[in-house]
Amino acid sequence: MNPPENLIKEIQAAQRFYIVPHVFPDGDAVGSALALAEALESLGKEVSVKSRDPLPIQYRFMQKAERFSNDFNFPEAQSSVLIIEDCNTLERTGIKDVKFKKTLVIDHHLLGDGDYETDTLATTVEADKVHFSDAHWIVSKSPATGLLIYHLLNALSVKITESMAENIYLAISFDTGTFRYSNTTADSLAVSAKLIDLGVSASYIADKLYNNWSEAKFLLFKQMMSTIEVHLASVSVAVVTDSMFKETGALGEDTENFVNFPLMVDSVKVSVFFREYSPQKWKVSLRSQGGINVATVAGNFGGGGHKNAAGYRISGTLDEIKGMLLEKLKKAL
Amino acid sequence: MNPPENLIKEIQAAQRFYIVPHVFPDGDAVGSALALAEALESLGKEVSVKSRDPLPIQYRFMQKAERFSNDFNFPEAQSSVLIIEDCNTLERTGIKDVKFKKTLVIDHHLLGDGDYETDTLATTVEADKVHFSDAHWIVSKSPATGLLIYHLLNALSVKITESMAENIYLAISFDTGTFRYSNTTADSLAVSAKLIDLGVSASYIADKLYNNWSEAKFLLFKQMMSTIEVHLASVSVAVVTDSMFKETGALGEDTENFVNFPLMVDSVKVSVFFREYSPQKWKVSLRSQGGINVATVAGNFGGGGHKNAAGYRISGTLDEIKGMLLEKLKKAL
Repeated sequence: MNPPENLIKEIQAAQRFYIVPHVFPDGDAVGSALALAEALESLGKEVSVKSRDPLPIQYRFMQKAERFSNDFNFPEAQSSVLIIEDCNTLERTGIKDVKFKKTLVIDHHLLGDGDYETDTLATTVEADKVHFSDAHWIVSKSPATGLLIYHLLNALSVKITESMAENIYLAISFDTGTFRYSNTTADSLAVSAKLIDLGVSASYIADKLYNNWSEAKFLLFKQMMSTIEVHLASVSVAVVTDSMFKETGALGEDTENFVNFPLMVDSVKVSVFFREYSPQKWKVSLRSQGGINVATVAGNFGGGGHKNAAGYRISGTLDEIKGMLLEKLKKAL
Repeated sequence: MNPPENLIKEIQAAQRFYIVPHVFPDGDAVGSALALAEALESLGKEVSVKSRDPLPIQYRFMQKAERFSNDFNFPEAQSSVLIIEDCNTLERTGIKDVKFKKTLVIDHHLLGDGDYETDTLATTVEADKVHFSDAHWIVSKSPATGLLIYHLLNALSVKITESMAENIYLAISFDTGTFRYSNTTADSLAVSAKLIDLGVSASYIADKLYNNWSEAKFLLFKQMMSTIEVHLASVSVAVVTDSMFKETGALGEDTENFVNFPLMVDSVKVSVFFREYSPQKWKVSLRSQGGINVATVAGNFGGGGHKNAAGYRISGTLDEIKGMLLEKLKKAL
């Protein structure tokens, strides 16, 4: 994969950069930003990494993480190039009414895709152009922005350090589920092999990504497990209530992947996860494996998403909202 | 990695082979055997894959799995070459009193290592020779026998088919936890990239390895989760009783990785798993992260293993055996 020449030229020509990931940055967004910032600095440029939201606690261990700032001001905007990464609209960065000298885009999402929560798979649709940017590189078949950053660094003749390598490795690992998701490509493995040769420890990063549960999260998971019921032979239903959060001290973000857990079971075709984010107010997550379109199901309740991952918000008692959903799922099965 | 010339020569010179993995074959042993068998056949040789134990149910989906036989007889032994793989002693294969024309060994375990249950990490100790064999290739720093098979096939100029690639990919994935364990090497990722280029789907194999739980196993896991207690601030204790097996219909092998689950929690340094395999008879598994030598702890009860993974068997009531273990752990912490 080769980055477009106009992107290379814009980067080579400029001196001062702001690198901005999408709001609520994830592992790919953070790793890509930190690696790119260090790389551009190694070329003698001035770089700030700015994010609307703070660095999530689980990424504080990352090398060069201290440069990740959520002081979301851009005093030198007019003389600086903005690089937005892991997203392709200004809206997704949270930037409003700031005029930069130029804007560049590096991303692997669908053009204009605004629903990252449920955007679990990259697709093969390519963006022809991003109108607002001066140059862009958007490759939706790339499993991670981090993989694009690796190729960009090579195209810029950057000497990749161990810390750049580690941040890129984390980015690729995060977005491929460490090579378990269907977006995993030969290139993502081949590049990761080179990153390990540069000093990355695969098990260290995996440990940081997957073995980082707090005791509170584990206690919540334990309580969630005890709620699991199987309905209609193939629908798993799990619940986390407001009082469970209070009892365990866990946070909303701790439940991020809970909905995926029951999909380990062969016979489970749909996994439903009810999270009570304030009394009788629920965030409902749906995951599907094997044909049922959960976006359609979520649409019945004013939500949406993708075929295999969707969600909606709803108010009511658990019995009410569960009954309503199961009725719709019964028709969809 | 290049296989030794005498191994290549012995394989090239022979016409008839028995390939035999270790008893209770795992993903690496099965994938390696199936890939090697297909490869030798593609060179015009006659090959049987024989195992003391049947193919575990989770590997029945594998390409060419039908050739995996546990009809453990060797009618043509005297005119055949025996290749034992993923182990390096005859004892580990279950073969007794059979005389073969020649015996070859391909493995990545420590020389003579007989405790595979707890042999979770390859080490850097190399075997100089395996006395009983005519040629051997034992590379204990290789994360998987499957990786050795890949290099052997190249050295034999075998054209690697999609089915060979898939079986090798599964072997490497299994033994590296799909690139999450500390044995993961750059070479294991680089070779896996080539296997994907040959047609392997990373997500298909990951799905078969990790999302294959039976409902019975899931129900048992749910019950196990409800038993988890944390002792001494950093020791997780989980239990599966004989009556839980009966209630859920799950099998002993279903609990294989349960002991690792609590290690996801940051504060857990030792994970203990008590499995009641018949009334008041227990198999105790210990895992450690962060310095405590659980082999020493297991040694107190006549067991053993490695620093980070050990176990023993014991009889008694749960309260008795738990109390005895916690007392020893208290001293070790």
